[in-house]
Amino acid sequence: MTEMVVGKDLAPLGGETAAMTRDKLARHGVLAVNLMGSPGSGKTALLEATLSLLADRARAAIITADIETSADADRLAPHGVPVIQVNTGPFGGACHLPPEVFAQTLERLDLATVDVLFIENVGNLVCPAEFDLGEDHKVVVLSVTEGEDKPLKYPLAFHEAALVVVTKMDLLPHLPVDRARLAANLRRANPSTTPLFASSFSGEGMAEWVAWVENALTAKRQHGRKE
Amino acid sequence: MTEMVVGKDLAPLGGETAAMTRDKLARHGVLAVNLMGSPGSGKTALLEATLSLLADRARAAIITADIETSADADRLAPHGVPVIQVNTGPFGGACHLPPEVFAQTLERLDLATVDVLFIENVGNLVCPAEFDLGEDHKVVVLSVTEGEDKPLKYPLAFHEAALVVVTKMDLLPHLPVDRARLAANLRRANPSTTPLFASSFSGEGMAEWVAWVENALTAKRQHGRKE
Repeated sequence: MTEMVVGKDLAPLGGETAAMTRDKLARHGVLAVNLMGSPGSGKTALLEATLSLLADRARAAIITADIETSADADRLAPHGVPVIQVNTGPFGGACHLPPEVFAQTLERLDLATVDVLFIENVGNLVCPAEFDLGEDHKVVVLSVTEGEDKPLKYPLAFHEAALVVVTKMDLLPHLPVDRARLAANLRRANPSTTPLFASSFSGEGMAEWVAWVENALTAKRQHGRKE
Repeated sequence: MTEMVVGKDLAPLGGETAAMTRDKLARHGVLAVNLMGSPGSGKTALLEATLSLLADRARAAIITADIETSADADRLAPHGVPVIQVNTGPFGGACHLPPEVFAQTLERLDLATVDVLFIENVGNLVCPAEFDLGEDHKVVVLSVTEGEDKPLKYPLAFHEAALVVVTKMDLLPHLPVDRARLAANLRRANPSTTPLFASSFSGEGMAEWVAWVENALTAKRQHGRKE
């Protein structure tokens, strides 16, 4: 199922949108993981690989946000999970998924049939980090091709992240990038998280990533109940 | 010369900031090129390679903007041209270089000694495109690792660009990216510009890029005078 949502269909909600969303997700025992990263950092490819690995273990759904196009939903649709594409362009090209838009998009999903909701935010390492959507975890997706210095230059996103997935590790042999220096910069930006080095192409790190998602789901369910 | 400017030193100017900046640059015959691109798209590497090639042909200066750190200025400083690092973090992590901040930073440069001013904007494919700094040209720097669909997903930046430099072309053999499809998407986003495929690492396309800069400088000077 793929559905297309554009900004003009949605009116802003007032008040404590993120708190309302958090309550709703808790009521349904749904884990919401908000993927943030630069354009081309590999968020969609990570989701494609994740859906295959997670298929027999948890029921996934995806809300994917872009300024324009349904390119990401088109890529994700063949995996047979609910996918809703949000276009932020009609909101003046919003460089992130706004909490009100996420909340209203959520109403289009049957949460009783979902275990893990992945949010693929607009490709941007700045704005998405500034907003609480009511998600359980923010995860930064950083392509190793972006270089070692990004955790220091975009500190908020890394500081807010429960996990950093360093993608496209299959390209490392061709890059002037030092893995140890990148890891050190990630620790400086966020001492409480360990980076996960991965490649959707080679499969490196994908089992650990899926295990992280399953553990986060288990942890959430232990604090709530599934309707 | 490297200088560090942080947001709190700068107060907003009112009114027609971009127009005032444009007049000032024209008075001094300075070509201003605003590089916009995702984090890690290769803006700084492109500038490093450019400064070497341009050294005997035009006097360059750089204003480089990041949310935090002086990492880019530190990389560019050894080239011996004036480099001013602006940190936008004190403006609430501004995801772009604001026109007022650019105008006031410009006051710290001796424009009589500058032919080409490169602006390295904050790593972001959304926000910088929304602002007129008074520059002559916006140039999008797109890493080929970002994939083929970015011109369609981030249309404003590509639409505003006088030129798109596709960087890191040395990595193309290792990527599931089709050069012809990327070129077609670039044409769809902006039919009036031809992409320049380049690699700061291998040198591919660098002569064409420097020629583009020199031609733009000549064109500007033909419409003005150098003080």
